[in-house]
Order: sequence, then structure tokens, then C-alpha cells
Amino acid sequence: MPSHPLDFQLQANNFSTPELAAVFDEQRKMNRWLKVEAALAASQAELGIIPTEAARMIRDKACIDKLDLELIRQGYGKSRNSLMPVINELRRACGEQFGQYVHYGATTQDILDTGMVLELDEGLQILYRDLRVLENILIDMSRRHRLTPMIGRTHGQQALPITFGLKTVIWAGEVRRQIQRLKALYPRVMVGQLSGAVGTMAAMGPKAREVAKQTMELLNLDWKAPGWHTSRDNMAEVASYGAILGGTLEKVANEIFLLGKTEVGELAESPPQSMMSSAMPHKTNPVLCQRVVVLARHIRGLTTTVFEGMAHEHERDPRRLWSEWLALPQIVMYIGTAAAYLVQVLDGLVIMERNMQKNLFLHRDMVMSEWLLFRLSPVMGRIRAQEKLHGLLRGIAERGGSVREMLATDSEISPLLNEDDMDQLAHPERYIGLAVELIEDTLAAVAAQRQTDPEALHR
Amino acid sequence: MPSHPLDFQLQANNFSTPELAAVFDEQRKMNRWLKVEAALAASQAELGIIPTEAARMIRDKACIDKLDLELIRQGYGKSRNSLMPVINELRRACGEQFGQYVHYGATTQDILDTGMVLELDEGLQILYRDLRVLENILIDMSRRHRLTPMIGRTHGQQALPITFGLKTVIWAGEVRRQIQRLKALYPRVMVGQLSGAVGTMAAMGPKAREVAKQTMELLNLDWKAPGWHTSRDNMAEVASYGAILGGTLEKVANEIFLLGKTEVGELAESPPQSMMSSAMPHKTNPVLCQRVVVLARHIRGLTTTVFEGMAHEHERDPRRLWSEWLALPQIVMYIGTAAAYLVQVLDGLVIMERNMQKNLFLHRDMVMSEWLLFRLSPVMGRIRAQEKLHGLLRGIAERGGSVREMLATDSEISPLLNEDDMDQLAHPERYIGLAVELIEDTLAAVAAQRQTDPEALHR
Amino acid sequence: MPSHPLDFQLQANNFSTPELAAVFDEQRKMNRWLKVEAALAASQAELGIIPTEAARMIRDKACIDKLDLELIRQGYGKSRNSLMPVINELRRACGEQFGQYVHYGATTQDILDTGMVLELDEGLQILYRDLRVLENILIDMSRRHRLTPMIGRTHGQQALPITFGLKTVIWAGEVRRQIQRLKALYPRVMVGQLSGAVGTMAAMGPKAREVAKQTMELLNLDWKAPGWHTSRDNMAEVASYGAILGGTLEKVANEIFLLGKTEVGELAESPPQSMMSSAMPHKTNPVLCQRVVVLARHIRGLTTTVFEGMAHEHERDPRRLWSEWLALPQIVMYIGTAAAYLVQVLDGLVIMERNMQKNLFLHRDMVMSEWLLFRLSPVMGRIRAQEKLHGLLRGIAERGGSVREMLATDSEISPLLNEDDMDQLAHPERYIGLAVELIEDTLAAVAAQRQTDPEALHR
Amino acid sequence: MPSHPLDFQLQANNFSTPELAAVFDEQRKMNRWLKVEAALAASQAELGIIPTEAARMIRDKACIDKLDLELIRQGYGKSRNSLMPVINELRRACGEQFGQYVHYGATTQDILDTGMVLELDEGLQILYRDLRVLENILIDMSRRHRLTPMIGRTHGQQALPITFGLKTVIWAGEVRRQIQRLKALYPRVMVGQLSGAVGTMAAMGPKAREVAKQTMELLNLDWKAPGWHTSRDNMAEVASYGAILGGTLEKVANEIFLLGKTEVGELAESPPQSMMSSAMPHKTNPVLCQRVVVLARHIRGLTTTVFEGMAHEHERDPRRLWSEWLALPQIVMYIGTAAAYLVQVLDGLVIMERNMQKNLFLHRDMVMSEWLLFRLSPVMGRIRAQEKLHGLLRGIAERGGSVREMLATDSEISPLLNEDDMDQLAHPERYIGLAVELIEDTLAAVAAQRQTDPEALHR
Repeated sequence: MPSHPLDFQLQANNFSTPELAAVFDEQRKMNRWLKVEAALAASQAELGIIPTEAARMIRDKACIDKLDLELIRQGYGKSRNSLMPVINELRRACGEQFGQYVHYGATTQDILDTGMVLELDEGLQILYRDLRVLENILIDMSRRHRLTPMIGRTHGQQALPITFGLKTVIWAGEVRRQIQRLKALYPRVMVGQLSGAVGTMAAMGPKAREVAKQTMELLNLDWKAPGWHTSRDNMAEVASYGAILGGTLEKVANEIFLLGKTEVGELAESPPQSMMSSAMPHKTNPVLCQRVVVLARHIRGLTTTVFEGMAHEHERDPRRLWSEWLALPQIVMYIGTAAAYLVQVLDGLVIMERNMQKNLFLHRDMVMSEWLLFRLSPVMGRIRAQEKLHGLLRGIAERGGSVREMLATDSEISPLLNEDDMDQLAHPERYIGLAVELIEDTLAAVAAQRQTDPEALHR
Repeated sequence: MPSHPLDFQLQANNFSTPELAAVFDEQRKMNRWLKVEAALAASQAELGIIPTEAARMIRDKACIDKLDLELIRQGYGKSRNSLMPVINELRRACGEQFGQYVHYGATTQDILDTGMVLELDEGLQILYRDLRVLENILIDMSRRHRLTPMIGRTHGQQALPITFGLKTVIWAGEVRRQIQRLKALYPRVMVGQLSGAVGTMAAMGPKAREVAKQTMELLNLDWKAPGWHTSRDNMAEVASYGAILGGTLEKVANEIFLLGKTEVGELAESPPQSMMSSAMPHKTNPVLCQRVVVLARHIRGLTTTVFEGMAHEHERDPRRLWSEWLALPQIVMYIGTAAAYLVQVLDGLVIMERNMQKNLFLHRDMVMSEWLLFRLSPVMGRIRAQEKLHGLLRGIAERGGSVREMLATDSEISPLLNEDDMDQLAHPERYIGLAVELIEDTLAAVAAQRQTDPEALHR
Repeated sequence: MPSHPLDFQLQANNFSTPELAAVFDEQRKMNRWLKVEAALAASQAELGIIPTEAARMIRDKACIDKLDLELIRQGYGKSRNSLMPVINELRRACGEQFGQYVHYGATTQDILDTGMVLELDEGLQILYRDLRVLENILIDMSRRHRLTPMIGRTHGQQALPITFGLKTVIWAGEVRRQIQRLKALYPRVMVGQLSGAVGTMAAMGPKAREVAKQTMELLNLDWKAPGWHTSRDNMAEVASYGAILGGTLEKVANEIFLLGKTEVGELAESPPQSMMSSAMPHKTNPVLCQRVVVLARHIRGLTTTVFEGMAHEHERDPRRLWSEWLALPQIVMYIGTAAAYLVQVLDGLVIMERNMQKNLFLHRDMVMSEWLLFRLSPVMGRIRAQEKLHGLLRGIAERGGSVREMLATDSEISPLLNEDDMDQLAHPERYIGLAVELIEDTLAAVAAQRQTDPEALHR
Repeated sequence: MPSHPLDFQLQANNFSTPELAAVFDEQRKMNRWLKVEAALAASQAELGIIPTEAARMIRDKACIDKLDLELIRQGYGKSRNSLMPVINELRRACGEQFGQYVHYGATTQDILDTGMVLELDEGLQILYRDLRVLENILIDMSRRHRLTPMIGRTHGQQALPITFGLKTVIWAGEVRRQIQRLKALYPRVMVGQLSGAVGTMAAMGPKAREVAKQTMELLNLDWKAPGWHTSRDNMAEVASYGAILGGTLEKVANEIFLLGKTEVGELAESPPQSMMSSAMPHKTNPVLCQRVVVLARHIRGLTTTVFEGMAHEHERDPRRLWSEWLALPQIVMYIGTAAAYLVQVLDGLVIMERNMQKNLFLHRDMVMSEWLLFRLSPVMGRIRAQEKLHGLLRGIAERGGSVREMLATDSEISPLLNEDDMDQLAHPERYIGLAVELIEDTLAAVAAQRQTDPEALHR
């Protein structure tokens, strides 16, 4: 009886991928808690705090498959603690003798926060992988289309020529920065939690710091003094990263959506049968692009919630903590899904160069007005050139005709232009400034940075 | 394999109630769509647009239990349309002859929006019921405690006496306004959608308006021209109502949390076994109050998302629409759950009048300073009185002692006060102004408005 | 030395109108506080609580022009109270004898909240006036363009024909609901505040309720028990109204922006000289539409802030209160400015019917596919019709040609269609369903509601 | 006539500092634009693109004090461009011969974005300085109070002992991370913009990249290909940094507010005369702490607005751009002000160790329950120990008495405890676990990182 679209079973994976949904599955989440308890026990045994047999037993039982799910379920029916029903069942499974050493000296938040860090790790690794695929596609696209001319648009209006490769290389540069941010963020986040009820480690005895360090090493996490029970800045940074990356993915998806509008027709999501309109067969809908936008919007809302939750009060404040625990997994699922969808979109992107060409000439040669202004300014003076051109172009805008024809018959300007100039007016695709050089510079810089990328994120 | 806490099966109903979760269940959602299709077919048959046998067949099959869920699931695997897999299966179930009359002239959004309105109806009815229970409890509490003295606090500092009933009657008044808002909102929202692909009703033929009206009548909904495919103001109002009501519920829950802090100890959530700390047995945690705060915070984030989605582009804009479809059900689940939790908290609220009394005297009789100022101003002049009292009270704050003692030995003031005045200083509980009158006025106004409440929300 | 764009003096009124900026001017704000103090004194004199001469003196001096601004400025340099420097200066101006009766029994928040309500009144009246002008324009436009055909678009794709009047009547209906909301909201908000330090009215004596009622009557406000010092639901409702109305204004402005894109060219902001690009003279930028979108976005952010501030703690919580006091005036300035800008845009809107016509035929007669499907379904069976058409139309999409030609040579379909049918294919402007009827219904409903509109908002 | 509190002249600097307000002053902002134009001209002269005399003249005139403000004001009255009125006046001032070389080949956004980066620089330098002062104070406080015992609180309930130094070192650690974030962020943000109308640099000729590099060097900024006209991720990161840092400052301010509540009384804002309540002289209000919370809340709202604005469309999208230009300066003013206020609060913080001591014993020795549990578990078995203690402590909670007395008479437990154990019960200040070690570790780590701090932020 699922009530959140993330868990719908008939209309599945509308806002998730199966891979990501599996990471955040309830039982897998509990398994991570059990893994933390096992690592804690192993460290405490190693340091002589609890019996070695206890640690061994805990390790053997610390797996959700070995516990009685029904008893856990009943436990949650009775207790409002987020962890104890699982701990109690683990204790029961370990028997009276060893069960008492489960969760020894730890507090609920220690386990849940550490579990969440492990969960974030799994989610962020998937995201990292997909961002690099995304970047690959964009690099290739930028190189391939470095000379593909199209119109640039500002204020929603056609402005001057660019190349499609310049547009995509800007995306590539932005994705590169997002990858760098993720790499920088990762070690800050991969820090476990183990400080006891109020952060003093009191119940864990004098070797508590060693216990913490060893436990986290077993989990491949870092540990630092003091605990971050109430310091949620790193978690807020993960959320805000989601919002910022969401902004990048949304921008790309939305631009594809826009350039795919019927009247523009320059790009299209590859149209599988599945996206065709039933009643209007001439129409295919850019479904995935739209979903990316939806996901980015939801991440923003959730990030606000996480930000609002930073001001923890005293030594633990569930009014903020639980709010974050509820928001962060969704954020990572959504951002990972958005990245996966965008990879799919770009992979099959239909690029209609002919329409780009057509749109470039929509206003005929008026698009060359800036070129003309800079061509005439040195010889006429800028002010006079501007005045003159404004008049001419307004005339064309109202009465039609081409700039070329108009100039040819203008007694002031025609003597100032030669045949090459007149020819240039017919070739907006030549007026792309340093687009190619900017693309090459960017790709070189991206390539240099990619050298430092590991296969998977690591601390 | 649930990945959203709303759907967790072991740690269930942490942020929902079983009753509300059932309303938003995926299959129940699809059942509502089927119900809309059946009503549409019935109206079209009645108006002679499709065969009566077709409508009858559709009505018979339009129930999720009668359809092949596996085929629907597979359909969603292939199509990205939110509705067609269900429609296709309904068509299949109706056979070739009648299946073609399913969803005749309608567009996906017609069915999903209308289904969502029916869903909101179910959710809002539950909310309405619980808000009225909440109000009942607050009215009783206000009456019972209209004379229970406690300290009022401003800027986090003890200020002047109030009564507990004054605090709760302010809550009651606010809840009353929220009930009024819900009643006012309800008919605006209970409007079905049926306008075809771009809002012209073109595919539904010349009797389209009659079809729409009759369909909605069968569903107990209103219909109005034009459709609201792209006008989401009413939905945004539902979301913002969730945020505003969330603010009220959060305020009450948070105040109980605050007045239950160890150092204050005036209120407590009734402490079932389930909320006791395992390692610190002297401690009980106000879990439900904290959850209400968490829910309110999440509603705010989701409301931002809905607001952001209002600016639909052209005749349908899924970049906004789907975002709203994803957010609204969560908002209603969360706000309904928050109301249910708060009812539970208030129902078992432990009110420690003795601690209220104790806190009232925490600064001994210094809490009477305002009274004293107004008592002395007419006889000493306000400026002199204020100057004098500031000096005296600062002295007490630094060196201890009571105002009474200090005044008794002050040669300027002691002649101005009689025995009754000195006695008054020992009775801050008498300095409650018009608290009782304000409570009575409010309860009378609330009672008058309650007269107009129906048992259930209706249009 | 202004640092917020609202107060820039060189680049003035980029995000405000002079009329609205004047309402929220600092000195005018203080004048309102003084007006509240004067009304309070007058009521207290009338009820025999303070001397009549005191009230008269206070009334005479309660005007910012009569006070020493430099002393007030210095007062704020020393005190962190939001009001007392003004009160102190008023007291000084009233002399020792009468000055002590200024602000008698009131608390700072009483005056500031009541002042803010008066401020909101001024702002909302301007907004109300402009919304009605906006509605007028939209009504006329809808009537005039009820038959102006254009293409409807869904998912960013051309879909089916609509009329421009249907689009604008949907806007008109939405604006009408926003006017209704404002009218409903207004009396809830026009409630003054006067309850003393903790809401008991203790310092105001036994006639405090009469004082409050009379004071508010003099200010043309309502008064109700209990005070709303900590109940900010009505203020949150004003904010959320701003966000929701912002969504409507943004939608309209954004749609004009979109339909004015070079490739679409159906609408344009009237292009004054001022909006022309300097370097690209062929381009005019829809500046006001873009500003409306910016304002709506900022209102949303501020509304989140107001929502977050609802959960006041205890009897006064400046952590929330000041946050609201900072946000609400901006919200009203922004929403009022957005409305004024949109009036200006619609007033001069350039409607290019010829381009609408041209775009309607962009896919030649493929836009008639839905009509064709519903025309053929009864004779071929829906499933066969759909299959057949899908094939044909996909062919046209790939190889070009018109539907008409294709059908003429198709041996299965051509016998089923007559001359009229073939003719219909060339006339998408006829396939507008009930657009005209829906427009007329809506205009009639709007007209009926307008009957109940007063000239200005009143309680 | 200021209408935004940031610019109020009587009640000045409620939400800003004079230093920060000056940075964002309108004329100073324009001066930065002029500085960018001068640098551009200098580079273009150096590279032989414009005459050297032109660059010299531009440099001489590029100062707001040398321009006619009234003409600029009038220019903005006529033009809706954000920059041209200033450029036009600069051109006029440079005369016809040289004026034409002003802003040569640049676009409005180039200058405004670069100006904003320079503005951010000024603001962030102030913030950086204040964060380091803040950190200094916290380091000293942590060292001084590493052994000052107080009660730790979770779920709003007293839990176990901590030391005040542990609390403040957690703040110090968080502030350190915020300083690190700012240092990491800074070079990403200090990147100028100079790419012409659509990012191709076309109007700037073949040496455009050299022009850009040299211009930015003169401004002490970085330059990178491609331009970030539409890539706002770095700006979004500044905003999100504001929100995250706001969360940290809010947490500290709010905690001081909470620990200063009358019933707790452990901390207080140093009470200058200015914060005393007029009617309630026994009360001082933590005004600055509350303002910090207000500022943090507003930053969050503005950050949402910036996030929402990331998805720029095409080659320039003022619907997003202007929204960011309006939000970012406010964010930096607010966050800088919050930091300055918090420095002031911490600098004068009143720490009442005696009240900390008193609160530690509020539940007498019940606070030692966790210690007792861990003391008895090894000898009684954990399960039995827990059962036994729960019973005893519940009894004490209900009937009063001390744990010590209770244990002394308990036949099961008393034989298990010795005199030292009984003594320990009276000394919760000894049960602080590794608080001191955690403080020392943190301070050492902070000290090591501080080694790498420059005096001022640099790229």
C-alpha cells in the first residue's frame, strides 16, 4: 500500500531509478545500522572493552536477514525510538550473554547518523559515476558541434550567432565544476558519528576515541573530534549541493525542452513510442526533460527544509534532526535520478542542424547588425553609425527587405563597404567570434582537471 | 522495497496515520481515475454520445480489482503517460466493441486532476474532523484553566502573569480561524476538470459542457467554465493552507515542548513507556510534539515547490504540473498527520499547575513591577516612578531580597502604599488583567461560529 | 546612501512604483504609529482614564513633522527598542504634565502591529484598484479576441487550435478569483492590536476592552479578543496571498514573454524607445514582463520566511516577529508593483494575429489529427482509426506533404470522407470546440461577481 | 524616502552595519562599473584596439563624482537598461572623440556581473575578518571553560553533564569549517565576466581573450573561458554559503537566547541600558541574538530565490538574472551583519557558572543514572541493571528523594557499591567523559588549520 510516488509499484520509477531506490530501501537502511553496530563491537573487543566472543556473535547476527522482521515491526509499534526495536532484536538474537554488549555506550543518533553517511556514500557514488558519463557526452558533443552555427538568444529574442558547441561546452564546464564540488564535499561528509548521549563519550570509557577511530576505519569512514550531533553544516552542504547541481541539470533539460518547441525545432528528446501523444499523433513530448525540471524543483523545496533545520538546540534536537533525516535521502534519490535521466536524454539527443540554420536566417541578415555597427564605427564614427543603422533596421523591421539591399541603395553607407563586406552579411555563421577558441580552451581545462578524477569518489 | 519513510513497513507510520496513508495508496488513486472514467461514460451515454451498453460495461469494469495489475505494471514500463496504461487495461477489459468509448474525448490531465480533487476531498474530510476534535479539547482546557496562573514570557524572559487558559484560548481562536479557512477553501477546490487536450472541449462535441456538468454531479463535484488545466491558484491555496495550518499546529506543539523543558516543567506529553530513554531513565521525550514540528517544516518546503509551479506555460506544462502532483498529496498527508498527533498530545497533556505556580515566583515579587509602576505613577508622576523603580529593582536583581522588603524601608515610597498594596505584591496571580474576560469573549465567539459547522465539509 | 534597490535614487523604481514606495516610507510608517497613539489617548480620555487635555495635546503633537527627527535618530542610536525613541520624543513634545499619558498601558508590539495593519491597508487598496483595472483589460481583450484563432501548446509542442480570447479569459477568471480572495482576506487583516505586554491588558485597567474597541474604531479597524501578538496566521495569509497572486501575475507575464519569442512572434510588449538594445537594433526586450517574473520569485522567498516565522514562542517572540515585520512590507510593495507593471504591459500589448495564423499552419494540416481521429472512429472503429492515422502522420512528419493529399490517395480512408471533410482539414480555426461558449460563460460569471465589488476594499 | 529597513535613516542599521551598508551603496556600485570600464579601455589601448588617449580620458572620467548625477537619474527615467545611463554619461564626459570607445565590444551583463564580483569581494573580506574574530573568541572561551560543568540537554530534557567548553568548541569547529568553505569558495567567485552579447566575444575582435585577461588582471580578478553569463552555479554557491553560515550563526545566537531564558539563566547578552524593557525593569532582552536569528531566516528565503534562478534560458535570461542581482547583495549584507552582531554578543557574553552548577543538580543525583547503569551492568548484568534502575528512578521521580539514599537502603544494590561509588553520585561534574580531550583535540586541529589562513582572502 505505497502512498509516495517513489514507492509506487504499478507506475514505478517515475521519479527514481531502480538502482537508487534500492539504496534507500528500508531494510538496506537497517542493515547499515547493523553493520555499524558490528563494527563498534569489533573495535570494542579489539580494545578489550567487551568480550571477543560477544563481538563475534554480534558480527554473525548483524544482518537484517537473520533477524525476525515481524518482531522488529511489533517493536516499532510499541516504541517511538528510531533504532531500539532493531537493537533489541539483535540483542535477542545474540542471546542474553552477549546481547548486552550490543550498542555498548552508543546513542541512537550515533548509529543513525553513521548509517546515513554510509547511505549517502552509496548514493553519491552512483551520482558521481553518472555525472562523469554526462560530462563525456557533453565533451564529445561540444567538439563535434564546435562549428555548428545557430542563433544565440537573449531576453527571449534572437540576438547574434553562436555555435551549438559553445552552448554545450558551457554545460560541460558547469558539470565539471559540479564534479569538482562533489569531490571536495565527499571527504567532509564521510565522517562517522560516535559520541554517546551528549557528545562526551562518557559511557564508552577512557578509550572512547580509539573505539571511534577503529570503528570508523572498519566502515571506511573518517572520525574527528568533536562529534557533529548538533553541527549539521556538512549535511546542509550536501543538500545545498543537491539544489545547486539540480539547477545545472534543470538548466540543460529545460534548454533542450525550449529548443525542442515546435516553432524552434532545433533539438528533440529521442522519441520512443512511449512518449507519443495518443490523441495527437503528430506530437512527441519531451517527458524526461520535464521530469528533470520537476526533480530539481522538489530538491529546492527539500533543501529549504534542511537549511531551516540547522539551528539545533542544545545537545540533540529531533525537531531539526528528524526533519533532515526525512529530507536528505529524498534529495539524493532525486538528484541521482535527474542525472540519470539527463544522461539518457543527451545520449539520444536529436540535433536538427537544418532547423538551426533556418532559425539563424529568420530575420534574414538583420542578425548581422552588430557586425555592421562595428564595421562602420571606425569609418563613420560610432554615434553616427548607430543612429544611421537604427533608422535603417527599423525600416526593414517594418517594411521587410534585406539589410544588404537597403545598404546597396544607401548613398551614405554603400561607398564605405566593399564586396567582401556585402558578402559577409549573408554569412552570419562566420560571425561567431572566438566560439571555437573558447570551446577549445574549455575542453583543455576540463581535460586537465579530469586527470585528477579517481574511478570512484574516495576520501 | 519502500524507500520513502511514508511507506516504510517495519518502522511504519512515523509521519503518517494508517487512515491517511490508505487514502493516498496507489491503487486507491487509480480507482478514483476509474471512477471518473465511469462517470464520464455514464454522462455521455445519458446524453446520447456513446452507447448505453458501453457506459454500463465501463461502469462494471472500472474498478482496480477487476483489472490485471500485472498488465498495468507492464504498461507503465513501456509508456511514460501517467494514465494510459490504466485506460488501456480498462479498454481491454471492456472488449473491442465498448473499449473504444472509454475516456472518450478526455485528456489525461482531466482524469488526473479530477482524481486528485476526489483524493483531496478524502484527505481534507479527515483533517476537518480532527481539527474540530482539537478545538473541542482546547475549548474545554481554556474553560477549565481560565484562572490557572502562570508566568507570561516575552523575548524568552519572564514578564508578567497570565493564565494558562488565556494561552490555550489563543490557540483555540487560531484553530477556529483555520477551520473557517478550510470551510471557505473547500468549495473552491471541489471543482472537477474536463476540457480536453487544450481546454476547448473540441473532441467532446457540442454537448461537452453538459457532459462535464453531469459527470461532476455524479462525482459530487462542481464544474465551471473554463477549465483550470493551467490555473493552479486553487491548488496553490490548498498548499498554502497546509503551510499556514502547519504553522499553527507547530506553534502549539512547540510551546508544549518548550513548557516541558526540564527547567520549566509546566507541561508534558503523557509519557507512555514507549517514549522513555533507554540509557537515561529519568527522562521522557516529547516525541509527538517534535514530529509535529518536523511535519510543519516539510510542508513549508513542499509549499514553496507548489508556489514555484504556478506559472504554467501555454495550455499544459508538466514541468509544473507533475511537480504539484508530487507535492500536494504529501502536504495533505503531513498536515493530517500533524493534526492527529496534536490531538493525541493534547488529549493526554499533563498540566503541572504546581510548577506553573513555582515559576511565577521565580523572581519573587519582581514580576509585579509593572503593576507597581502603574500604581505609583498617578501619585509620583510616571517619570519619577519609573526612575525610582528602575533603581530599586536593579538593586534587588543584583543583591537579592524582595520588592516588598525594599519598599517597606524606602522613605519616598512606603508612605504612598497601604497594607492592601503590600499584600498585592505577594499575589501575582491577581495581576492577570482581563484574562478571564478575554477567554470568555473568545469562547463565545468560537461557539457562535461553531453553530455554522456542518458534520462534514460540503460544497 | 541607499543600499537596497527599492531605495536607489539614480536607478529609481526598478522594483517599485513611486506610489507604493511612498506608502512604506520610514517617516510615514512612524506617522502611523503616532496616529495610533493619538487614537489610544483619545479613547482613554473619552473613558475617563487619562485627562482630556492630555489626549488633546497628544493629538496635536502626534505627527512626525512636529517632532525633532534628529533626537529620534539619536534615540535609535541608543535604544534597541523599535518604538520608544519615537514615543520618548512625543512625550517630550507633550511636556512633562501630559507626556506621561502617551502610550499609556500599551506595549511596543501593540503600536507596531496596528501601524502595520494601517500600512497594509494603504498598500492593499492600491493593489485592489490595479487588479480591477487588470481585469477590465482582460475582459475586453477576451471579448475582442474570442474568435482570434491560434495554436494551443502542450508539453512545449503545438497541439490543437484555441482562440486567443480563451487564453485571456482563463487569465481573467484567475484574476477574478484573486480579487475575491483579496476581498475575503481584507476584513480578517484589518484588526488592530492592543493588549499590553503579555496579552492580559492588565496595565490598561478594567475598561481595557472598551479602550481597544474605541481606539480601533477611530482608526477604522476592527478589534477582537484575544490579541494576535503570537497568532500570525492572518499575516501569513497576507504573505501567502502575495505568493499566490504573484504566481498568477507571473504566469501572464511569462506567457507574454514566451509568445513574444522571435520564433513565435504572436505577442509583444509595446516597445518604447527605452527597451531597445543598443548594440542589436533589431531587438526589443520585454523588460516589464521579465520584472514581473523577478518580483514573483522574490515574493515566494519572502513568503517562506513569513511561514517559517509563524511558530511564535510564549507571549512574544521577536525572532519570528521582526522577521515578519521585515518581510511583509516588501511583499506588498513587490506584489503591488508587479500588478502595476502588468497593467502597463497589457495596456500596450501588441497582438500579432497574422503570426498567430501563420503558426497555426506551421505543421500544415497535421494539427487536425485529433479532429480526423474523432471523425473516422465511428466509421472505422477507434482502434483501427488510431493505428491507421499514426502511420500516415508519421509518414508526413518524415517525408513532408499534407494530410489532405495523403488521405486523398489512401484507398481505405478516401471513400469515408466527403468534400466537406476535406475542406475542414484546411480550416483549423474552425476546430475550436466550445471556446466561444466557454469565454461567454466565464465573462458572464465574472460580470455577476463584479456586481458585488465595492469601489475600495472595506471591512 | 527610504522604504526598506536597510535604508532607514532614523532607525538606522537595525539589520546592517554602517560598514556593510556603505559597500552596497548605489553610487559605490556604479563606481565599480566605471572602474571595470576603465580597466577594459586600458587593456584595449594596451593591445592596440582603441587609442591610448581614449583609455586615458576614460580612466580620468570613470568616477561617479565626476559625472552628472542628475543626467544619470534622468537617463534611468527614460531607459530600462541597467547600465546605459551611466555609460552614456561617461561617454558624454569623455567627449565625442573618445566617448565612442567607452564599453567597446562589451555587453551590459559583462559590466554588471564583474561589478558584482568586486562588490562581493568587498563584502566577503569584511565577513572573513569577522569570522576569524568570532573564532578567536570561541577558542579562548573553550579553553577557559573546558572544565566548567553544565547539564547537557536532549529532546529539551536534561540528560547528562557536559562542560561549557565542549559546547563552545563545537561552535568553534563549525566556524572553522565555515572559514574553510569561504576560503575555498572565494577563488571560484573572483572571476570576471567579459564575453559580449552572446558569449562569443565577437564584437571585441580577435584579441578578445587577451583583452579579457588583462582587464581582469587590472581588477585583480581571474578570467576563464567560457563566460558565465548563464552559468550561475558559483553565485548560487555564494548564496547557499550564506544560508549555511547563517545556520551556524543562528544556532549559536539561538542557543545563547535559550540558555538565557529566565528559568535557565546560564548565559546572557551583556545588558546595556538600551535593551532594558521600559515597563518591566527586571527584564533585559537578548536583542542581538534575536536579530541574528531573523537575519538567518531572511537569508534562507533569499537563497531559495537564487536557487530558483539558476535555470537561465538561452544566452541571457533576465527573469533569472535580475532576481539574483536583487538577492545576492542582501544576502551578503545580512550574513555580514549577523556575524558582526554575534561577535558583539560573544564579546560581552555573561556566563553564569553558578546557575550552570545549580541546573546540574536540578534533579539532584538522578543525572548520574547513565553512569550508574554502566557501573552496575558488569556486576549485575545489563538487563537486570536496567530493569532495577528504571524502577528505582521512576520511584524517585514520583516520590522525591535522592538516588544515593535509595541505593543505600536497597539490599540488592548496596552491597555492590563502595564508598567511592556513593561519593561519585554527588559529583556529576566528574562524569564528563572525554570532554576535555575532545576540546583539546579540536583546538589543536583548528590551530593547525589557522596556520594556513592569510590576513585577507585571496585567490
